[in-house]
Amino acid sequence: QCNLIGWWENELGSKMHVSTVDNQGNFSGEYHTAVSSAQKPIKPSPLIGSQHLDEDGQCTFGFTVNWKFSDSTAVFVGQCFAGDSEDEVLLTSWLLREKVDSLPSDWKATR
Amino acid sequence: QCNLIGWWENELGSKMHVSTVDNQGNFSGEYHTAVSSAQKPIKPSPLIGSQHLDEDGQCTFGFTVNWKFSDSTAVFVGQCFAGDSEDEVLLTSWLLREKVDSLPSDWKATR
Amino acid sequence: QCNLIGWWENELGSKMHVSTVDNQGNFSGEYHTAVSSAQKPIKPSPLIGSQHLDEDGQCTFGFTVNWKFSDSTAVFVGQCFAGDSEDEVLLTSWLLREKVDSLPSDWKATR
Amino acid sequence: QCNLIGWWENELGSKMHVSTVDNQGNFSGEYHTAVSSAQKPIKPSPLIGSQHLDEDGQCTFGFTVNWKFSDSTAVFVGQCFAGDSEDEVLLTSWLLREKVDSLPSDWKATR
Repeated sequence: QCNLIGWWENELGSKMHVSTVDNQGNFSGEYHTAVSSAQKPIKPSPLIGSQHLDEDGQCTFGFTVNWKFSDSTAVFVGQCFAGDSEDEVLLTSWLLREKVDSLPSDWKATR
Repeated sequence: QCNLIGWWENELGSKMHVSTVDNQGNFSGEYHTAVSSAQKPIKPSPLIGSQHLDEDGQCTFGFTVNWKFSDSTAVFVGQCFAGDSEDEVLLTSWLLREKVDSLPSDWKATR
Repeated sequence: QCNLIGWWENELGSKMHVSTVDNQGNFSGEYHTAVSSAQKPIKPSPLIGSQHLDEDGQCTFGFTVNWKFSDSTAVFVGQCFAGDSEDEVLLTSWLLREKVDSLPSDWKATR
Repeated sequence: QCNLIGWWENELGSKMHVSTVDNQGNFSGEYHTAVSSAQKPIKPSPLIGSQHLDEDGQCTFGFTVNWKFSDSTAVFVGQCFAGDSEDEVLLTSWLLREKVDSLPSDWKATR
């Protein structure tokens, strides 16, 4: 079974720590991003999400990061894979929503 | 301040109910999708996420839906807007992750 | 058969004109965007793309816009649908690539 | 100046050949995908697109692939970078549009 608890690092050097997963698959932790499009200094930010609890260890999962140094929000969605030897690998895609002033600017708010 | 609590419906007829938002902006609820790419009958599915608590009522937010009728996961990210009169409108983008067998199929797992 | 030749307008007020489609489905024209994230004044910009030539009039297509007022590039991909009465509707998704200085900024270049 | 002419290969083993770039930056070639979500055997498929002609060799570009073994269309958008030594690297994002029967299925047509 894929266990998200622990530290994970991506290819950009961002790190996340998942501290707890409950028996529904809900989890929480902290995201330490290495990159930012915001002006203010980066701060660790809370994450909250949910994973499937499939017994084959290849569960899909998703989580939200509520940035503490900007008014943006990011979401990640992905899947666990067993890599070489016994390592687990997470592959994810993400969307970053920046706050915009008004509806006509909505088209450019998400990257 | 944008308050996500309550029922929301999108243009496809999917509905979501946010039942609680805590003082960190974490919220939970249930998503009733009107559309599905899965084989099994649709079931209401739990959602969990996080919102900013900006006082201007235009907060960004994100949430994860852990589908109870498939092994997929969806994430949504968006922003509250005040629409005509006093109505609130949520604009969101989403990603849907389907479970795939192995790493070489990862390229097609997300839509 | 879906014929892309002519003027099309989207919900943001952007307009495109497809002037020619050849017998391979390749087409060209001009895109007049109503919205921009660039500093310079908007200018009409050339588009080039390709469509399927299915006889049911529901062809998929894609095209590239080479912005003449910025160093960005946009791509659109979509499908023709017959709407109410005899109107044709195009539904598209897009990606906008902004030029970035170096590889480490690649993560934020596309929206 | 970034010159797209020639063969390029991505990490999935897909290859593309750009045969000509004109003085407007329009180019054409052939895409040999290594992966497919279609039923029929893969065939080389024509591509058509456009690039900026910036002198710093870091141009953005986009192109459309009209699949010859399916009724889908793909678009790619990206940027040239000088990698280690003198190698050029292309970084791209893509969207794949599958043909759907009717408007209510549009939500799931693009990945």
